Amino acid sequence: MAEPLFGRLCLLGVGLIGSSIARIARQRGDIAGTVVAHAKTPSTLERVRELDIADVVEADAARAVEGADCVVFCVPVGANAAVMAQVAPHLKPGAIVTDVGSTKMSVVRDLGPLLPKGVHLVPGHPMAGTEFSGPDAGFPELFQGRYTILTPLPGTDPAAVEAVRELWRRCGSMIETMDPATHDKVVAIVSHLPHLLAFTICSTADDLAEETKEAVLKFAASGFRDFTRIAASDPTMWRDVFLNNREALLEMLARFTEDAQALGRAVRWGEAGFIEDRIQRGRKIRKGLIERKQA
Amino acid sequence: MAEPLFGRLCLLGVGLIGSSIARIARQRGDIAGTVVAHAKTPSTLERVRELDIADVVEADAARAVEGADCVVFCVPVGANAAVMAQVAPHLKPGAIVTDVGSTKMSVVRDLGPLLPKGVHLVPGHPMAGTEFSGPDAGFPELFQGRYTILTPLPGTDPAAVEAVRELWRRCGSMIETMDPATHDKVVAIVSHLPHLLAFTICSTADDLAEETKEAVLKFAASGFRDFTRIAASDPTMWRDVFLNNREALLEMLARFTEDAQALGRAVRWGEAGFIEDRIQRGRKIRKGLIERKQA
Ligand SMILES: NC(=O)c1ccc[n+]([C@@H]2O[C@H](COP(=O)([O-])OP(=O)(O)OC[C@H]3O[C@@H](n4cnc5c(N)ncnc54)[C@H](OP(=O)(O)O)[C@@H]3O)[C@@H](O)[C@H]2O)c1
Ligand SMILES: NC(=O)c1ccc[n+]([C@@H]2O[C@H](COP(=O)([O-])OP(=O)(O)OC[C@H]3O[C@@H](n4cnc5c(N)ncnc54)[C@H](OP(=O)(O)O)[C@@H]3O)[C@@H](O)[C@H]2O)c1
Repeated sequence: MAEPLFGRLCLLGVGLIGSSIARIARQRGDIAGTVVAHAKTPSTLERVRELDIADVVEADAARAVEGADCVVFCVPVGANAAVMAQVAPHLKPGAIVTDVGSTKMSVVRDLGPLLPKGVHLVPGHPMAGTEFSGPDAGFPELFQGRYTILTPLPGTDPAAVEAVRELWRRCGSMIETMDPATHDKVVAIVSHLPHLLAFTICSTADDLAEETKEAVLKFAASGFRDFTRIAASDPTMWRDVFLNNREALLEMLARFTEDAQALGRAVRWGEAGFIEDRIQRGRKIRKGLIERKQA
Repeated sequence: MAEPLFGRLCLLGVGLIGSSIARIARQRGDIAGTVVAHAKTPSTLERVRELDIADVVEADAARAVEGADCVVFCVPVGANAAVMAQVAPHLKPGAIVTDVGSTKMSVVRDLGPLLPKGVHLVPGHPMAGTEFSGPDAGFPELFQGRYTILTPLPGTDPAAVEAVRELWRRCGSMIETMDPATHDKVVAIVSHLPHLLAFTICSTADDLAEETKEAVLKFAASGFRDFTRIAASDPTMWRDVFLNNREALLEMLARFTEDAQALGRAVRWGEAGFIEDRIQRGRKIRKGLIERKQA
C-alpha cells in the first residue's frame, strides 16, 4: 500500500460528502494515517461513531483541526465563515485547507481572510451528489468517474494544489481546474438553475386545487417526475447555495425567463417556426451530451 | 384465445404510439382480426412493411378506414382535422373513432364536427411515451402499467366506450376517465410545462458563450442532464401539442413564471425563510410521489 497522503486528515462536516470521503479513506488506507470527523450536533457525532467511519470523532471544531495536515470543509457553504472563525487560530502551520462547497467565490470570500500565514487554501467542488444527506447517505463510490473542480487562486503553493489533486484522484475523481468566477457561472446553469426550476414547479403544482394536485401525483410519470428527483434535496444546503451564488444564479434565471417568455409568446401567437426551432435546439444539446457520453 | 375485440382495426399513423399498438395486436391476436396501418410518407409505409407489424399497409387514408370497426388516430394532433376530412365520408356506420393525442379539447374540436351520424367518438390519451419517434421506436411493453385517460363526451354510446377501455386493457394499460378540459389542465402541468421548460433551458445553454457551453456539456450530470432527456422529443409532435393546448399551457407557464420570479426575488434579497419554504414544498411533492410509487 502507498504511503498515506496525509498524516492527519480532518473533515469538518460528515454528511453526504464528508462521510463519503471518510468511507473512502477507511477503505483505501492510503489517504490519511488518522481521520478526524467533526459535526455540529451530538446526534450526528454519535451516528458517525456507530458507523465507525472515522478514527477520531471530535465535538469541538478547534480541537478537531489541531495537528491536521489537511482540513476539508464539508459543511453547507453558509456555515464556512463561522466554522473558519472557530478553527483558524488552531490550524497547524503548513496545513492545507480545502472544501467541497457547491459555490466557490463565496468560499474564497469566507475562508480567505481568516487564513493564517503559511496555511494553504485550495478550494474544490466534487461534481457528484445525490438528493440525500447526513452521514448515512455517503458511500465510497460517490466520486467514481465524476469531475472535481479545483479553483486555486494564482500564487497558491503548487505542492498544496497537487496534494488536493491527489486526494481527489484517490477518491476516484477526474480533476479540472478553473477560476472561481467561471466555476460559479457554469454551476449556475448546470446545477443551480435546474434545482431552482425543480423547486419552483413543485411549488406551482402544490398551489393547484386539491383535485388537480391529486391528478398531478397520479400522472407524474409523463415528465413532471423527472423534475422532482432533484427537488428532494436538502433545504439548508440549497438555501446556502442560492444565497452564495446569487449573482450568477439570478443572471441565468433572467436569461431563462426571457427565453421561456419568448416561447410562451410564440405559443400564444401560433408561431410554429419559432417553436420548432426551440425544440430543435433541445435535441441538439441532448445530442451533444450523448456524443460526450454524459447523457 | 379470446375472440378478437374488433374485426378490422385501422391505425392512422404508425409512429411510436401507432406502431406499439400494432405490435401488441400482432403479438396478442385478440385485439383485431385484421390490422390496417396508414402513414403519410412512402418511406414510413415501406418501413412498416419491412417490420411486418400490420396485415395491410395502405397509402390512401380513405381506403385505410374502409370497413374498419375501430379507427385510431395516431398522428400529431395538428394533423387530426386534415386526416379526418379525408376519411370521414368513408367511415363504416357504427364504427368507433378514437385517438391517442396528447391534447383532448382540440381533438373534440377537430374530429367532432366531421363525425358521421352513427359513428362513435371516444378520445383517449395513453400516458406513456419516450423521446423517440417513428415506426422503429414502438415496442409492445410501452403501455404496460401506465394510465390511459379517456375523455368521452356525455351521451356517448356506453358500448363504444367499453370497447375502447377493453382495447387499452389488452394493451396493458390502466384506465381513467375525465372531461377533456380537466385532462388538458392536468397534462399542461404534468407534461407540457416540463417539456417547455426543458426545451427552454437547452436554448438558454445554447446561447451561452462557446467556452461556458462546452463546460455545461462536460458537467451536465449535476442536474442539467435530467432536464435534457425529455428535450430530445419530436419537434412536430410537440409543436402541435403546444399549439393545441395553448390556454392551459400559458396559464401554467404564467403561474410558474410568477413562482420562479418570487424565488429569484427571495434570493436577491436574502430571504432565507422563503427559500427554505420553497425547497420544503419540493420535498413534500416528491414524498407524495414516492408514497404513490410514482417516483
Ligand atoms: N449534496 C450534494 O449533492 C453536494 C454535491 C457537491 C457538493 N456539495 C457541497 O458539500 C457540502 C456538504 O454537503 P452535504 O450534502 O454533505 O451536506 P449534509 O449531508 O447536509 O452534511 C452537512 C454536514 O455539515 C455539518 N454542519 C452543518 N453546519 C455545521 C456547523 N456550523 N459546524 C459544524 N458542522 C456543521 C452537519 O452536521 P450536523 O448533522 O451535526 O448538522 C453535517 O455533518 C455543501 O457545501 C454542499 O454545497 C453537496
Ligand atoms: N411520443 C409520446 O411520448 C406520446 C405519448 C402519448 C401520446 N402521444 C401522441 O400520439 C400521437 C402520435 O405520436 P407519436 O409519438 O407516435 O408520433 P410519431 O412517432 O412522430 O408518429 C407520427 C405518425 O403519424 C403519421 N402522420 C403524420 N402526419 C400525417 C398525416 N397528415 N397523414 C397521415 N399520417 C400522418 C406519421 O407518418 P410519416 O412518418 O409518414 O410522417 C407517423 O406514422 C401524437 O398525437 C402525440 O401527441 C405521443
